[in-house]
Amino acid sequence: MANPYETDLPKTQANFTAMSPLSLIARTAAVYPDYPSVVHGSRRFTWAETYARCRRLGSALAKQGIRSGDTVAVVATNIPAHYEAHFGVAMAGGVLNAINTRLDAAAIAFIFDHGEAKVVLVDRELSGVVKAALTQCQTKPFVVDIDDETYTGPGERIGGIEYEAFIAAGDPDFAWELPADEWNAISLNYTSGTTGNPKGVVYHHRGAYLNAVGNAVEWGMGRFPVYLWTLPMFHCNGWCFPWTVAAMAGVNVCLRRVDPAMIYELIRTEGVTHFCGAPTVLTMLINADPKLKDGLKRGVKVTTAGAAPPAAVIQSMEEMGFEINHVYGLTETYGPAVVSAWHSAWDPLSLGERARLRARQGVRYGMLEGLTVKDPETMQDVPADAQTMGEIMFRGNLVMKGYLKNRKATEEALGGGWFHSGDLAVMHPDGYIEIRDRSKDIIISGGENISTLEVESVLYRHPAVLEAAVVARPDAKWGETPCAFITLKNGASATDKEIIAFCRDNLAHFKCPKTVVFTDLPKTSTGKIQKFVLRDKARAL
Amino acid sequence: MANPYETDLPKTQANFTAMSPLSLIARTAAVYPDYPSVVHGSRRFTWAETYARCRRLGSALAKQGIRSGDTVAVVATNIPAHYEAHFGVAMAGGVLNAINTRLDAAAIAFIFDHGEAKVVLVDRELSGVVKAALTQCQTKPFVVDIDDETYTGPGERIGGIEYEAFIAAGDPDFAWELPADEWNAISLNYTSGTTGNPKGVVYHHRGAYLNAVGNAVEWGMGRFPVYLWTLPMFHCNGWCFPWTVAAMAGVNVCLRRVDPAMIYELIRTEGVTHFCGAPTVLTMLINADPKLKDGLKRGVKVTTAGAAPPAAVIQSMEEMGFEINHVYGLTETYGPAVVSAWHSAWDPLSLGERARLRARQGVRYGMLEGLTVKDPETMQDVPADAQTMGEIMFRGNLVMKGYLKNRKATEEALGGGWFHSGDLAVMHPDGYIEIRDRSKDIIISGGENISTLEVESVLYRHPAVLEAAVVARPDAKWGETPCAFITLKNGASATDKEIIAFCRDNLAHFKCPKTVVFTDLPKTSTGKIQKFVLRDKARAL
Repeated sequence: MANPYETDLPKTQANFTAMSPLSLIARTAAVYPDYPSVVHGSRRFTWAETYARCRRLGSALAKQGIRSGDTVAVVATNIPAHYEAHFGVAMAGGVLNAINTRLDAAAIAFIFDHGEAKVVLVDRELSGVVKAALTQCQTKPFVVDIDDETYTGPGERIGGIEYEAFIAAGDPDFAWELPADEWNAISLNYTSGTTGNPKGVVYHHRGAYLNAVGNAVEWGMGRFPVYLWTLPMFHCNGWCFPWTVAAMAGVNVCLRRVDPAMIYELIRTEGVTHFCGAPTVLTMLINADPKLKDGLKRGVKVTTAGAAPPAAVIQSMEEMGFEINHVYGLTETYGPAVVSAWHSAWDPLSLGERARLRARQGVRYGMLEGLTVKDPETMQDVPADAQTMGEIMFRGNLVMKGYLKNRKATEEALGGGWFHSGDLAVMHPDGYIEIRDRSKDIIISGGENISTLEVESVLYRHPAVLEAAVVARPDAKWGETPCAFITLKNGASATDKEIIAFCRDNLAHFKCPKTVVFTDLPKTSTGKIQKFVLRDKARAL
Repeated sequence: MANPYETDLPKTQANFTAMSPLSLIARTAAVYPDYPSVVHGSRRFTWAETYARCRRLGSALAKQGIRSGDTVAVVATNIPAHYEAHFGVAMAGGVLNAINTRLDAAAIAFIFDHGEAKVVLVDRELSGVVKAALTQCQTKPFVVDIDDETYTGPGERIGGIEYEAFIAAGDPDFAWELPADEWNAISLNYTSGTTGNPKGVVYHHRGAYLNAVGNAVEWGMGRFPVYLWTLPMFHCNGWCFPWTVAAMAGVNVCLRRVDPAMIYELIRTEGVTHFCGAPTVLTMLINADPKLKDGLKRGVKVTTAGAAPPAAVIQSMEEMGFEINHVYGLTETYGPAVVSAWHSAWDPLSLGERARLRARQGVRYGMLEGLTVKDPETMQDVPADAQTMGEIMFRGNLVMKGYLKNRKATEEALGGGWFHSGDLAVMHPDGYIEIRDRSKDIIISGGENISTLEVESVLYRHPAVLEAAVVARPDAKWGETPCAFITLKNGASATDKEIIAFCRDNLAHFKCPKTVVFTDLPKTSTGKIQKFVLRDKARAL
């Protein structure tokens, strides 16, 4: 017998809408048109203005030929145009590809080609590397220069038109449409790639919407936050916060670079209530000139992630009056999808004990369906004994759509009904996870992922190098830096300075080893290099 | 050329989950197992306990034969079992049909039959009317008595088993599953029905989830609210707040009946932070014995809806220190889907002016896609001039799935891509809607909808009545009461007392006219009774 609840009750235009972050900015612009939206130096926009600028951008991109599924790349710092791109590109039906500004030209060229960028928006400060990338790639995108009026440093214009002129030709009443399906792509974010070339992580409208709302709920953000952009928008779309801030009708305080003096000043002058940052950013704030901290109000809320934050960092921040929220996630999970949810029962504990609890990665976001630690061989959950290591696995609406044009990697990553994070952790008896070792290879330096395989592949190209292995070395300033263990060819010679210089000629500088050790490499009986031995050695250096 | 973003990137178990309120309680029980969940007199439950009880209920219902799409009806006050049913029924795959406790036996019998209830949970206090209904309906549901230990009043057990014994036989670790599709039904809520029999409004998991989260976001609820159940859970599933409170890991403070002394006491003893209620409830609180208000803390948050709240009521509540949130919606929109969003620019206005602004129905919830006022003939938006009346229309994920087994009514209600509310309003220049007249017929008395057609159909059955028309008459206590205008048959006679007594024999008491006027009825040239003339007369009485 037919189930009457599922008969004659179809989805219609009246009762079903694709979920999309575009709805969030439209609503905020309608309800709070005169509220501040974006602040950048002396430039100040309202939500009505920002929404109109996004629509102009969407219209201009549509005129430029951008259609559903076309990629629009952005290489920019955290400036208004970058924020607007988080809406305007999708309004044209396009897919936003915000690119890590620290990559070298070859990596950017690879991404332009792999993502098939049709249009590139480029911050004049970063035009040098983009110009070089454009000479190396096959694709020939239309280039728009963002010549931000508050930027007076070096860098030439390399495109056909400046951003303000580009959007001025767009329609501020552009009748954008929601995606035909909420599963359609909204953005493309490249991982650093542990196995050769970076992978393009695809986000869809549904997931971006849910994580945007989830960020606000998990952080207890409330309406009208004043959000400082310490976190790069190119990192997982700023962990989806461009959309969160629109949903909550907050203020986006732009920031061209992470500078403690500027951060402390903006907290004071703009009344910043919230910001995000890797532990490295927190360390910079802790070690900043004490004079910068004069008159700092207590209660500014900080979300940190990107590496396991040392308890000492959390403790120091809390002593300064910041309220720390610790989250965890990966590019593949729209940024944060796990939160170290706080219990009032922990309030009376010592600051150190509280920091230790806060440093655990925690529990799933309400919007995520499943989070667990499994033995990746058997797919069985590890016991919740705080001892047994396993792989962190995610399931639900905050897991990526997949890797662009990489069916094999997508199927591997999402195999068995769970996203395999590659991060190793234990499960505590209270259901909180804690990372005990990150994925075997990745180094996180200053909040940036560095693939050891990529560095090794450069080292292997040096004529004197026989074998090379790169591991993380703990670093007070950067969290970690790459440490290279090298065996030279018989009769060959090289110095650590030569090796590092060679790397700087062939890699983004932040990826280059800071330490080089010449030695034989420890190996398993089957000839596999034992990186865990090298990690111990690097720690002891 | 194929769009690479939509190729080889399918939904999988790893990256797609049906949205459902069931995920919300599972997460809260896992993260905050020892936090209080439900308080009822001396009974206190934790989230681990409530979740286990819900799973027991789901398991017991499954053993009783409940399968996907089977209806489980509840006739109960706001007690723990009613709260648990909001999760347990869906865990078995069933559809929750919470029935208005003020209906008479005939109306309940109609609902049992139309909804095809397989199981009925009945509060012992209400067993009399349910027993009568069961003798009148064709369907023969399995009956479970809820003999709440805090209730000592009259009422017999009428079922085969008491609720505690029923769930005791269920499995506290019941492995419930999410719905196969988030569009599947989660609940059934009957309208009072303006045209004869009530209509069964179907909610789905997706909409219930989004409105549950939306309630928290729009109200700025934050984690761990202490929520007092002044609002009946049978009204649009308590406006989805059973699911909201679970999402936010709050406390449900149960309340068997709306009683000002009890409300003030619970605010004090349980530290209530939030409650909802129709303006009638607020009026009761305002007019309560001042002694009850001794020591009332300021800042308790109140959401009101269900009728246009008089500005004077809002003002009086705010003077007492309550913070008023005004929302609007219908059964068809999961309860509230519109909010009178506040602007800080209004803070300096007088209390009266603020109350006037607050009394407007407002703007769409962030989770709702569209809200507008249209001429229902042309489907054109009315000008935003605060003058031109039109019909309020809704669009998006907070609009019902449709009416159960009523394709015609569903298609009419959702025609033209918008849900037609039947409520008349103007659009203000700032985009806020304000109801100027409710749907032509409905009377809202004490927060209950009364269909004038239903009352008229009874009046027409009285032997002395020639013609009858019922309209709302403003009432200080109830908001409105039914006022009957009657033309007697030639030579017939009747008194107002006789008419009212006749109605009380044939209708739920709250639906009976409080005022009866014997007169000729004003009519249009085509013979249609001019209710707007009668409304004016009723106002002037």
